[in-house]
Amino acid sequence: MRTSIATVSVSGTLTEKLIAIATAGFDGVEIFENDLLVCPHPPEEIRARAADLGLGIDLYQPFRDFEAVPAATLEANLERAERKFRVMERLGADLLLVCSNVSPASIGDDALAAEQLRRLAERAAEHGIRIAYEALAWGRHVNEYLHAWRIVRMADHPNLGTCLDSFHILSRGSDPIGIEAIPGEKIFFLQLADAPLLAMDVLQWSRHYRCFPGQGTLDVAGLVQHVLNAGYDGPLSLEVFNDHFRQADTGRTARDGMRSLIALEQTLRGAAHPAVPTGFAFAELADAGSLSGVLSALGFTRTGSHTSKPVELWSQGEARMLLNATGADPALVALGLDSPDPARAVKHAETLLAPVLPRERAPQDASLDAIAAPDGTALFFCDTAWLGDFGAPGDSGAVEAAGAAGAAGAAVPIEAVPGQITHIDHVALTQPWHHFDEAALFYGSVLGLHPQESLELPDPYGLLRSRAMSTTPVSGAGATDEAAEATGAAGAAGAAEQVRMVLNIAQVGAGDTPWQHVALASGDLLSVARRLRAEHPELLLPIPGNYYDDLECRHDVDPELRRLGVLYDRDEHGEFLHMYTVTVGRVFFEIVQRVGGYRGYGAVNAPIRLAAQHAGHPKMGQ
Amino acid sequence: MRTSIATVSVSGTLTEKLIAIATAGFDGVEIFENDLLVCPHPPEEIRARAADLGLGIDLYQPFRDFEAVPAATLEANLERAERKFRVMERLGADLLLVCSNVSPASIGDDALAAEQLRRLAERAAEHGIRIAYEALAWGRHVNEYLHAWRIVRMADHPNLGTCLDSFHILSRGSDPIGIEAIPGEKIFFLQLADAPLLAMDVLQWSRHYRCFPGQGTLDVAGLVQHVLNAGYDGPLSLEVFNDHFRQADTGRTARDGMRSLIALEQTLRGAAHPAVPTGFAFAELADAGSLSGVLSALGFTRTGSHTSKPVELWSQGEARMLLNATGADPALVALGLDSPDPARAVKHAETLLAPVLPRERAPQDASLDAIAAPDGTALFFCDTAWLGDFGAPGDSGAVEAAGAAGAAGAAVPIEAVPGQITHIDHVALTQPWHHFDEAALFYGSVLGLHPQESLELPDPYGLLRSRAMSTTPVSGAGATDEAAEATGAAGAAGAAEQVRMVLNIAQVGAGDTPWQHVALASGDLLSVARRLRAEHPELLLPIPGNYYDDLECRHDVDPELRRLGVLYDRDEHGEFLHMYTVTVGRVFFEIVQRVGGYRGYGAVNAPIRLAAQHAGHPKMGQ
Repeated sequence: MRTSIATVSVSGTLTEKLIAIATAGFDGVEIFENDLLVCPHPPEEIRARAADLGLGIDLYQPFRDFEAVPAATLEANLERAERKFRVMERLGADLLLVCSNVSPASIGDDALAAEQLRRLAERAAEHGIRIAYEALAWGRHVNEYLHAWRIVRMADHPNLGTCLDSFHILSRGSDPIGIEAIPGEKIFFLQLADAPLLAMDVLQWSRHYRCFPGQGTLDVAGLVQHVLNAGYDGPLSLEVFNDHFRQADTGRTARDGMRSLIALEQTLRGAAHPAVPTGFAFAELADAGSLSGVLSALGFTRTGSHTSKPVELWSQGEARMLLNATGADPALVALGLDSPDPARAVKHAETLLAPVLPRERAPQDASLDAIAAPDGTALFFCDTAWLGDFGAPGDSGAVEAAGAAGAAGAAVPIEAVPGQITHIDHVALTQPWHHFDEAALFYGSVLGLHPQESLELPDPYGLLRSRAMSTTPVSGAGATDEAAEATGAAGAAGAAEQVRMVLNIAQVGAGDTPWQHVALASGDLLSVARRLRAEHPELLLPIPGNYYDDLECRHDVDPELRRLGVLYDRDEHGEFLHMYTVTVGRVFFEIVQRVGGYRGYGAVNAPIRLAAQHAGHPKMGQ
Repeated sequence: MRTSIATVSVSGTLTEKLIAIATAGFDGVEIFENDLLVCPHPPEEIRARAADLGLGIDLYQPFRDFEAVPAATLEANLERAERKFRVMERLGADLLLVCSNVSPASIGDDALAAEQLRRLAERAAEHGIRIAYEALAWGRHVNEYLHAWRIVRMADHPNLGTCLDSFHILSRGSDPIGIEAIPGEKIFFLQLADAPLLAMDVLQWSRHYRCFPGQGTLDVAGLVQHVLNAGYDGPLSLEVFNDHFRQADTGRTARDGMRSLIALEQTLRGAAHPAVPTGFAFAELADAGSLSGVLSALGFTRTGSHTSKPVELWSQGEARMLLNATGADPALVALGLDSPDPARAVKHAETLLAPVLPRERAPQDASLDAIAAPDGTALFFCDTAWLGDFGAPGDSGAVEAAGAAGAAGAAVPIEAVPGQITHIDHVALTQPWHHFDEAALFYGSVLGLHPQESLELPDPYGLLRSRAMSTTPVSGAGATDEAAEATGAAGAAGAAEQVRMVLNIAQVGAGDTPWQHVALASGDLLSVARRLRAEHPELLLPIPGNYYDDLECRHDVDPELRRLGVLYDRDEHGEFLHMYTVTVGRVFFEIVQRVGGYRGYGAVNAPIRLAAQHAGHPKMGQ
């Protein structure tokens, strides 16, 4: 389908916008009037520039407060329209968006609105221009899409059709199935925006919080399906007003918008996601030598050395860490994802404009393809071949395949050993400022992860926003919990077959706290904690006694939690025990135990952790 | 009155908060529970620290979801309370805030709520603790302050009273006059917060957008008057949840809170503001030599030299500029404000914790007192004595008083000369990030300015927020317009007797655009524009032709506006013509003409200006 985007959706000057939009691969643009008004170039130059870039000008918008007015106002409005038609001719645009009148002076009379829109369409026809009439969600009298269509049908002019906008329709809770009552050829244009669910005035919601399809919670794909069923074959055009997009990099936002349309088309095709990972193959940490002691303290052992690179494999149960002796400050640099078909996964990621990373490898190394996540972390799609690149520790020969499977492979389920870590439960990454919505779309479309709880977490110097995503969908309120319960019941080995990511961003203040963490699962966290507390107390993040005074008010918990510094949470499905190491460089570790079907991430305790981490790094990022 | 503040209102660790709160001069604090939970120090240490700092612990809060529960839950809740009482004893706090139950499991039964709160009060009494019961605006069954009071009266226990919170009361639109039905001794506590008027879910509004009294639009002082009328004599305590305060400097926020309470007490005393300025005496610009050419082009002439400093006086009508040859990049560094009693104005500013600036002056110089505005601009309170420090240009002798009055004094009304600038219309200052609310309170309390329109303005890389303040109150909808009309009718000389400030902040993106500007009034802007266009076209900010294509659609305007690059706006009171110079260093000039009673600042044209300025300074501040 033809793809388009309104210039208001991205930041910059009109010229910058057009270049970024063309580079991202769109077929056309909607020229948002204000972008033209502030532009020093006349319409003819914009037209030529767009043509040079291969962009069609699909729509000029918006024309406001036209219809259902007293007769004297109508004449002035028609004169105003004539002047806009002339601008459109200079611009080479032949479709004008007219949004429903919001003026208190407008009249609630459909016949009058229809008659006046017909007059407008007649005038437009003289210029070869068509009019797309849209119901704004906050229109004075017309604010439902079917009401706008009723008026368009009454007006009955070939140059008058309707414009549908997913935000205006879904934000009001209107059922989009009525779209199928509109003949496709009378739907002159389709604008798409998603949004998070917010309890606020719809005008403010629209002006500041719209986002690209797949970034919010509206069922945009479902709406588009109805529009296609109606027979519409015009552009899918993005129109977003978003405070973050206004200030983010123009090219990156445009690419993100294009990704949202590609993902939307994939959703409409209805095929199963071809690249959902089944677990974490490894987490790779850059290191200058300080992490091997931490991993050793956590119970990992060095089980292999890369045959051609300064990379060591550390293993425990199904949890595998690669230490890459780059000499850099300790940081999480890559994740290996168990993939049923790595080549297909990379190809799929490429269709979604994910940057594929060049990789240096020796001729004998396994082929491993990686893409860059929005925060720059490399994501490798793996089968077990990569283990062949590792020999015995300090050795240069490759580990035998059978041995590799025994030491670290995913094929043989590992039983929980008391006091041992079994697998990687989840990985938390800090997203770049302004790119939180990008991350949700990226992990959703590229990896097929489903969004889970989204939370605001206070820290001493600001608020963090956090959203979990995982390969297991969270059932909505009222839906059956069977899928999640099944996963919970499968125990440690089953849980390892999930990929859970936690995406954090410093929403207000708190600097760009660049901390990432790997959460390691244990079937017996208290044993792990006892050993660490006895042997390596310096590695454990101190938890205030005040926390336990409160915890003991709320829950009947084992007093040993206080002594060991273990945090606690519960939900209606089960319990959660967790503890943290101190931060080393840019990374720290969490050890977690899920009891029963607990689904969360202990977010209620995050403020305790954040304050303790700030105490260790006073005013970090300030 | 006793002053207090909840620890959640400022950023930082609990220790940092206590120090800042004590430094700002508060008598006590409310300990917000989460601040204690994340704190590594036990309650006894916090108690000692607060005592050392001279702070009382006036309240511990909040205790949630206690009342109107099934019997089994009651026992657990009482046990939970007992544990909190022990924490409070260690902390030395004897008043606990209990907010109305929000749980869906709570029961809408006032008698049950009263009985259970009475049980709680009995248990509290054994510890010498009192309970203050508060209606949360989003409480499940109890969300009106009179409803909470009804339940407290039914419970009838000396250790149970009510807590009033201005946000919870005013955000719901409840009439605070009913407070006078509550005996003062049963009002155990009073929490104060203001807020801007926002159409959003009250819980989100409360958690993110509260601000200090005088920074928003709620009538907090009116509410406090009712509480005092009821006989309350406890603390005035601030409780604010605000995304900006969470990340702003702790000490600065605490001082700001204290200023809000001092201003509130001054309002309650009802005396007229003692220090409202009557006009701009001067604007002082730091300079390295480039501004004299600009001023000269604008029609200013050099009318004096300071007798002891490298400062020159440039005058035109009643508009006076000081060029201070600091060698720095051109910037606005100070404003002189005509003040009926400069010494009293400074003393008043000091009571409001405004920083008084030290001033270097020669023994013979006039005494001029200055304070620092929130953005660092020096504000001088002036009578006409300062003119005596200036001699003839290039001269070292003081200008004769009579001559000074003729050239630059405020005593003789200046008639509008065609093509001449008559006075300073307004000054626009960019506020520091996170300190927009501080500025509104500062200019309101220290200078007695009234807030006017507050707007969001898009620029190519973000959104600006802008609020005008002036010495003339803006009448609300439905009120008579007489005051403003009178000012408008008084013409140029009358308008000069106003002080208007425009406070801008980069709300999202747009960097910290550090531009300030001085808007100069003319009675005949087109003549000024013709002269500038002919003689100094390079000084004028270019305005796109597309702007005029649109303007001519909307208004029937003189085609000369396009040729001259003059912008246009109108409101129901009159018309506005304005134009801009290019930016020199950090400052630019606007020339404006108000026709009739126009009250605004041409904000509708701000996006045009901002885009043109960005074109001149590509990605300024990015």
